[in-house]
Amino acid sequence: MALRIGILTGGGDCPGLNAVIRAVAKSLMRQCGATVIGIADGFAGLMEAAPRVRELTWESVSGILMRGGTILGTSNRANPLRSEADTARVLEHARALGLQALVVIGGDGSMAIAHGLSQRGLPIVGVPKTIDNDILGCERSFGFDTAVATVTEAIERLQTTAESHGRVMIVETMGRYAGWIALEAGLAGAADVILLPEIDYDVEAVAAVCRARAQRQRYTLICIGEGAKPIGGELTVQRRIADSPDPIRLGGVAHALREALEVRLDVEVRATVLGHVQRGGAPTPFDRVLATQFGNEAAQLVMQGAFDRMVTLQEGRLTSVSLAAVAHGSRCVPQDHPLLRAARQIGVSLGEPA
Amino acid sequence: MALRIGILTGGGDCPGLNAVIRAVAKSLMRQCGATVIGIADGFAGLMEAAPRVRELTWESVSGILMRGGTILGTSNRANPLRSEADTARVLEHARALGLQALVVIGGDGSMAIAHGLSQRGLPIVGVPKTIDNDILGCERSFGFDTAVATVTEAIERLQTTAESHGRVMIVETMGRYAGWIALEAGLAGAADVILLPEIDYDVEAVAAVCRARAQRQRYTLICIGEGAKPIGGELTVQRRIADSPDPIRLGGVAHALREALEVRLDVEVRATVLGHVQRGGAPTPFDRVLATQFGNEAAQLVMQGAFDRMVTLQEGRLTSVSLAAVAHGSRCVPQDHPLLRAARQIGVSLGEPA
Amino acid sequence: MALRIGILTGGGDCPGLNAVIRAVAKSLMRQCGATVIGIADGFAGLMEAAPRVRELTWESVSGILMRGGTILGTSNRANPLRSEADTARVLEHARALGLQALVVIGGDGSMAIAHGLSQRGLPIVGVPKTIDNDILGCERSFGFDTAVATVTEAIERLQTTAESHGRVMIVETMGRYAGWIALEAGLAGAADVILLPEIDYDVEAVAAVCRARAQRQRYTLICIGEGAKPIGGELTVQRRIADSPDPIRLGGVAHALREALEVRLDVEVRATVLGHVQRGGAPTPFDRVLATQFGNEAAQLVMQGAFDRMVTLQEGRLTSVSLAAVAHGSRCVPQDHPLLRAARQIGVSLGEPA
Amino acid sequence: MALRIGILTGGGDCPGLNAVIRAVAKSLMRQCGATVIGIADGFAGLMEAAPRVRELTWESVSGILMRGGTILGTSNRANPLRSEADTARVLEHARALGLQALVVIGGDGSMAIAHGLSQRGLPIVGVPKTIDNDILGCERSFGFDTAVATVTEAIERLQTTAESHGRVMIVETMGRYAGWIALEAGLAGAADVILLPEIDYDVEAVAAVCRARAQRQRYTLICIGEGAKPIGGELTVQRRIADSPDPIRLGGVAHALREALEVRLDVEVRATVLGHVQRGGAPTPFDRVLATQFGNEAAQLVMQGAFDRMVTLQEGRLTSVSLAAVAHGSRCVPQDHPLLRAARQIGVSLGEPA
Repeated sequence: MALRIGILTGGGDCPGLNAVIRAVAKSLMRQCGATVIGIADGFAGLMEAAPRVRELTWESVSGILMRGGTILGTSNRANPLRSEADTARVLEHARALGLQALVVIGGDGSMAIAHGLSQRGLPIVGVPKTIDNDILGCERSFGFDTAVATVTEAIERLQTTAESHGRVMIVETMGRYAGWIALEAGLAGAADVILLPEIDYDVEAVAAVCRARAQRQRYTLICIGEGAKPIGGELTVQRRIADSPDPIRLGGVAHALREALEVRLDVEVRATVLGHVQRGGAPTPFDRVLATQFGNEAAQLVMQGAFDRMVTLQEGRLTSVSLAAVAHGSRCVPQDHPLLRAARQIGVSLGEPA
Repeated sequence: MALRIGILTGGGDCPGLNAVIRAVAKSLMRQCGATVIGIADGFAGLMEAAPRVRELTWESVSGILMRGGTILGTSNRANPLRSEADTARVLEHARALGLQALVVIGGDGSMAIAHGLSQRGLPIVGVPKTIDNDILGCERSFGFDTAVATVTEAIERLQTTAESHGRVMIVETMGRYAGWIALEAGLAGAADVILLPEIDYDVEAVAAVCRARAQRQRYTLICIGEGAKPIGGELTVQRRIADSPDPIRLGGVAHALREALEVRLDVEVRATVLGHVQRGGAPTPFDRVLATQFGNEAAQLVMQGAFDRMVTLQEGRLTSVSLAAVAHGSRCVPQDHPLLRAARQIGVSLGEPA
Repeated sequence: MALRIGILTGGGDCPGLNAVIRAVAKSLMRQCGATVIGIADGFAGLMEAAPRVRELTWESVSGILMRGGTILGTSNRANPLRSEADTARVLEHARALGLQALVVIGGDGSMAIAHGLSQRGLPIVGVPKTIDNDILGCERSFGFDTAVATVTEAIERLQTTAESHGRVMIVETMGRYAGWIALEAGLAGAADVILLPEIDYDVEAVAAVCRARAQRQRYTLICIGEGAKPIGGELTVQRRIADSPDPIRLGGVAHALREALEVRLDVEVRATVLGHVQRGGAPTPFDRVLATQFGNEAAQLVMQGAFDRMVTLQEGRLTSVSLAAVAHGSRCVPQDHPLLRAARQIGVSLGEPA
Repeated sequence: MALRIGILTGGGDCPGLNAVIRAVAKSLMRQCGATVIGIADGFAGLMEAAPRVRELTWESVSGILMRGGTILGTSNRANPLRSEADTARVLEHARALGLQALVVIGGDGSMAIAHGLSQRGLPIVGVPKTIDNDILGCERSFGFDTAVATVTEAIERLQTTAESHGRVMIVETMGRYAGWIALEAGLAGAADVILLPEIDYDVEAVAAVCRARAQRQRYTLICIGEGAKPIGGELTVQRRIADSPDPIRLGGVAHALREALEVRLDVEVRATVLGHVQRGGAPTPFDRVLATQFGNEAAQLVMQGAFDRMVTLQEGRLTSVSLAAVAHGSRCVPQDHPLLRAARQIGVSLGEPA
């Protein structure tokens, strides 16, 4: 009897989701004549009283490789493990839909759910999805290259303005727990200072770089990950807007650093928070290829019956890991990473005290 | 005797400034063996006790066509008309430097200064520079096409996220007095709602569009120019942060609209303020060609001795206008502009009451 | 009774066709509840025994603004004026389909057909489509900006290689009769020599530029329109491959020039023929806006009953001209065009004898 | 005493060369106060009677990260191992210039020379440079990502035209010995058929794909690496133009396949040879980061005195290998590569017989 496999995307939007969906669906259809059932809006689509699903056809997944977003829709709130009733409903719906297995494309939250449901008897294969490149056990995930490209382009744009006006320009990138985007985009965009969640920064050291550059190059470009913190805690602005219902949206870290630098420097300081544009858009060719591989590998795991596992890239090779091993925690930039050494040696400041 | 001509860039950064500098300098050097003197940081470079200038060579203006920013530097504060002493110093410096004429590339503020100095005897040719495309007497200025391209790309990125999550996404563009960027980028990016400074919008009408779209397309993309206002005055958030020293930087209009919609709608609403990225970066091919034409035309005016005039584009043709005619006011989107008609007829809401 | 309007795209692919289709269809549907019938593959779809048509819906023309190509399909061979039988069949099919009018998006060939059919009683509005920007009576047509951007990007890529290797690099662009693409992309890409169909070039003068640059800049970049000819006729390579059934595809003019330069110079000379990539891809924001305006204007003409006319841009304004006036001939670069003056004055060679 | 290190770039242009030069020079200057000597035009600059060199300064290598090409110049002909006299002259010049070591950035040919000179006593560190991604012992080299992006964009452009006209479109990519570019760009661009040097193709199988697609999708996009061959030898066109002095430039493989398909199919078949554009242009962010890492690692090897070695990427990690191990041969796509499996399973034809 032919396989009947469900597929869903959970968590925030990420370039390459459609490329994964396409590769999973085409591989399963072509290799074993499977029926592939697309579930709407992540786990939400399975949790509601009437599950929202539709069969994916070869045509419906053709032409979506380059498209950003997800044709299935997503949600970042639904969590069927939150209550026993929700868990039971999801398992019941999967059974009622005749699903022999489920492919879950999502972030660490989705992988934790996937592992929980696997333990409860629903065979699941996970595919890591993270703009921030911070899922445990995965060296490089799709969407990250696109995000780095978007941020790099923004840095290049800001640089010409910084240079023309002799300003300090701060650009805030995504990356709450891990600084990969700020690090790679900062290096690719020739930022002068790169501040990461993994290395608390010294405001005085940053100001010193700006002062030195004001003499010769006239401008300084600072790339800061949204999770970066000054040594000794938060800066004043962050406190001042702390009673706002939504401090993140107001671009805490970049504006806080701006205020801290303005009182220390003579030159103009401007901050830009890139925000949602980092999540969207067509995936780069690199991400299309990586996402296609991830999707194809997920299909192999399904066909092999290797469940409760996540497709991944390790030591440059496509492989898989146990969901249990990756469901909790973030993959941060290690202190001895060669990119940090490269940054320091070519003269990029990481905000470290002199 | 060979000509000796000064050149400066004033006001905010704008893609294509270097292309103008290059065309002015090369044309003057090649056509009449002129010496071209670059003045640093706009009028500031002429106002200081020791003017900051350097001779431009053929080599120094080669290879800059594609580069964003201005190799001369700029400033948006220096105004030599503010005091008689400043005016006198600028005139004196121009004389001391042996400048027979000055080419001023700048916005309406710079054109007003250029006209004032022309009246005082300094022969000046102006070149219009505005991201916002809002200088009087000029149908299309360089930098605008690049800004529209940057904003359009951002809208496309936001759209995939809006669609995947079923959200209302608001993107705020530059354009304090004129809505050209929001209008053209909104049309090019297929925004569903476009809000301009020229047409006060009805929050209820915008909410109605979002509600209708939530049924079928699930998401709504709103493009709002930073100068757009709701009918009847400002929205609450703008007031709430009014005591902030820098409301503009916090993205007043987009966040205000977000709050206004959130209380009216069931779906998530997100706002993105694009900010400085709209000013920077390499000019599009269109802007390179236009800037090259403007620079070459400015050189003609210098060689013809046609001063107190600004190069411009009118009825699709390169020509010039009197500085007096363009120095005050902004070129807004006329209420009968065919793009407004096109927008309405293809189903784009301009926020007008039903 | 509601209108019933046909629409077709004829001739070669051009970025922006879908944007026109979308604007025509949405405007007609929204403004007067018209039924819009899409005809497949240009006039071919009306000439065949069973016309190939389908009704366009609001959904079917949504989301196509950014897509290159044409959802209707096109053909560049079908000509219903070639025989009386074909003409009769097209008129008969239009009648049978109940079409009150037809919108034809196409090049000069299509406009000639449109005029012929108009004369025979079929009410037609034309929309100019040309990569080459060479339709009579139209200052700027959609698709041209995209083609210029594609060529400019290619020139920039070739330039880094030319510079690194100290080579002469020739790039051949589209433009059989008019040199607009070569001229604008050559200027935007900072080509050193630009050769156009409108100005026969002197091989010795081109070689002299290469020799002079070999001393200082080491490399030379030549941009040549496919219709450019040397003074005194064709070069040898073109003769040598004259017995080939398809000389154009082998890149006649670039390779001929390469051979002519190789015997005159010491340095390596390479030629690249860009070919079909110039026609495809997503339209630039500029072209999306222009195409949207053209489509919306075509809908106005239909609603006003102003037939046998072509939408156009003249003196920077949207207007229309009689099809009879534009159906024959090409709009070439006038010898006194300001871009030619600008090119010469900034030191770009147009291949003119010394 | 401070180090004095030479650096040169050899072989064809490749995006990221300047990023490597910058990282090598800045790392050596900053870490150990080294003097870095740039050698012009690859080994040619050391072979000539008077070596052409200049000291690199921090300023001279600033701002070049994003620039394509090489500020040092390159040549792909100079080989100092060709004669004993040339070898001796290079060694003598290195001594006379006081170089303690040399960093050679180049392809397999340059690595072979580097190994030969190392054996003769000149301490050398190699950095792999290849558009084609085919250097032995190196999983991923800079420049490849940029080339894949360029080709992918071209495929996307050609696809809209193919679709609009219902054509078979063939695009020929670089890759004489290894099909990495064709494979990755083909996958990223959603090509329907991908033909590689590693898998001889069956013309009948390719024709069968085109025929099947003509029924439903109407068009077929074929991506062919320049080294791909049909089963049983070359096709007719390649023979027909064999007496041409320069068959490669005429695009042998794409045009040969075009002729072979034209006689087998009813539809139009067009071929595009991308050529030199694949080599040039600004590196992608990915390539900037990778090149920066390679350059920084090369500096470590110099400082550690680890010579006769090449920087490389293995199992996803930066490391180095003996030059002897990588100097001869190409890294082809292995028959069991997961990308080949992914391609087949998602329905991409590799031209294999049915």
